[in-house]
Amino acid sequence: MATIRIPFEDMKQEFRRVLLKVGFAPDRADQLAHIFAQNSLDGVASHGWNRFPALIEQIERGYVKVEAEPEKVAAFGAWEQWDAKFGPGPLNALVATNRAMELAREYGVGCVGLKNTNHWMRAGAYGRRAAEAGFVLLCWTNAIPTMPPYGGRENRLGNNPLVIAVPREQGPVVLDIAMTQFSFGKLEVARRSGEKLPVPGGFDAVGQPTQDAAAILEGGRPLPIGYWKGSGLAFLLDLTATLIAGGLATHQIAQKEVEFGVSQVYLAFDVSKANSATLINQTVDEIVKDLHETTPDGEGQEVLYPGERVLRTRRTNLEKGIPVDEAAWQAILKM
Amino acid sequence: MATIRIPFEDMKQEFRRVLLKVGFAPDRADQLAHIFAQNSLDGVASHGWNRFPALIEQIERGYVKVEAEPEKVAAFGAWEQWDAKFGPGPLNALVATNRAMELAREYGVGCVGLKNTNHWMRAGAYGRRAAEAGFVLLCWTNAIPTMPPYGGRENRLGNNPLVIAVPREQGPVVLDIAMTQFSFGKLEVARRSGEKLPVPGGFDAVGQPTQDAAAILEGGRPLPIGYWKGSGLAFLLDLTATLIAGGLATHQIAQKEVEFGVSQVYLAFDVSKANSATLINQTVDEIVKDLHETTPDGEGQEVLYPGERVLRTRRTNLEKGIPVDEAAWQAILKM
Repeated sequence: MATIRIPFEDMKQEFRRVLLKVGFAPDRADQLAHIFAQNSLDGVASHGWNRFPALIEQIERGYVKVEAEPEKVAAFGAWEQWDAKFGPGPLNALVATNRAMELAREYGVGCVGLKNTNHWMRAGAYGRRAAEAGFVLLCWTNAIPTMPPYGGRENRLGNNPLVIAVPREQGPVVLDIAMTQFSFGKLEVARRSGEKLPVPGGFDAVGQPTQDAAAILEGGRPLPIGYWKGSGLAFLLDLTATLIAGGLATHQIAQKEVEFGVSQVYLAFDVSKANSATLINQTVDEIVKDLHETTPDGEGQEVLYPGERVLRTRRTNLEKGIPVDEAAWQAILKM
Repeated sequence: MATIRIPFEDMKQEFRRVLLKVGFAPDRADQLAHIFAQNSLDGVASHGWNRFPALIEQIERGYVKVEAEPEKVAAFGAWEQWDAKFGPGPLNALVATNRAMELAREYGVGCVGLKNTNHWMRAGAYGRRAAEAGFVLLCWTNAIPTMPPYGGRENRLGNNPLVIAVPREQGPVVLDIAMTQFSFGKLEVARRSGEKLPVPGGFDAVGQPTQDAAAILEGGRPLPIGYWKGSGLAFLLDLTATLIAGGLATHQIAQKEVEFGVSQVYLAFDVSKANSATLINQTVDEIVKDLHETTPDGEGQEVLYPGERVLRTRRTNLEKGIPVDEAAWQAILKM
């Protein structure tokens, strides 16, 4: 698998070209291309160039509606419900993030519950965007079932990613965690390389905790973070997303042939109302400084805050180009 | 250790008697006694009868101010900041929960950031209360550092419990999770009994993951749920609590001689604005039903929703009395 490096702008233009071809209006093609290129730039190929062909396929199969735009269906003051009408997840997520920030500007805190949307790709992208605009953002989604609840056998819970983002001048702090200990992508990579997972990632076919990715993928079960705790958290993220968005729950999404029509929550705080940008930055910097002062476990290691590594990857890839599998890139060029 | 059973009302009256003695006004003594008795009733002795003497000691040492009541210090619409002025944590938590619900009634969603408060005992109590009133509640707190960030050696993160509660006629769904895989109380119990922890709970003195509670307590380190994921979540819960409450961060609380003056967030949704009580109940019931239908891992086991076991314990203890260590109870009677 040869890796080549593609400049950010070139990658974005290729995505844009393909999106125009499948029917997107120029401004929406531009926004969506930007998100896929940005995710790639930040080192998240699984929600960037590596996922782009799957999006096009979902559009062609009619699961993702090119022209659908989110519409407000109910307003309760600082909390609104929007219907995304099965449009492209990342564009819907941008609309919802922007609207949550507008509501927060008006009410201090603002919330958008978004129903009938599709996969938002990299959840952290929206947290990062809001934090860069000076807001605290919490957002989460439900998803098709991919792991069993703790103590059970069949997949009934989604991996339901949760994002919490906080502004900071030198680059925001952005937590972006799925409720599974490892994504299927990571399990797949470990299976192929034959390397042991760093910590137990699931149960094998006879119900024993294991660090063997192959054993988890072959008849086993992926593990929720913190066992019963992550299992409970995934369950509550589904419940709250369903109620706040007024949309479908995981058990309903499970009845469809593919994952679409998920429910999401976007919750923004306009923290500038309480503090000057200088004070916010100082508060966050001191908390980050305390973390950075932790003695690392091993030599040459560092204790990093969530989202810190992304900033380094972004810098490297901006300078050198985004690493892409050559064959995959050739396939995109031919789309 | 002989166990006796004390009826709920008797326990509450004993707590009330002691609280009046240390200077609480009757209505506040009543509320606080109710919370400690209710936590005991629900099977959470560590935040009930077993913790009560420690509260009285903290009051006597001046860390918890008997007469202090929370005061609104800033209002931004649906989000307010309150100063608890180092009053009793559970009473402050009730005020903040009620105020968040009032704001949600007005704006759909409402948030109270509470600074300078003290340990709220059992976090889930406030979620349960809000859910019983028909609201969705999210709340979290920061705390003194008790675990190292993932990849680090010293304790820099609090266990920062997070609560998410959802209403349901047959009893609310209430998630109440600290960011450590096991509480110190549970590690202590396992050390004394010599029983192996069911899953790894920390690292031993040489940095290896272990299920041996003694090894974790003796020079080891407790583990965040999901390793780097729970470590990141604990970090973000501290950051957001600090910014939203405008209060102290974990690294500042660490500089005090004991834990006091923590920061908390209470976030309520008045879901009745979007749906009838019947529809909410039906939606939640269907999600619960799907979970209950999971095939259990072992014979005789069940897959339960967060907070389900509490309802059973409560029923048993209401009927038979609350199980209490006899010596501990005698000590409370003599207070």
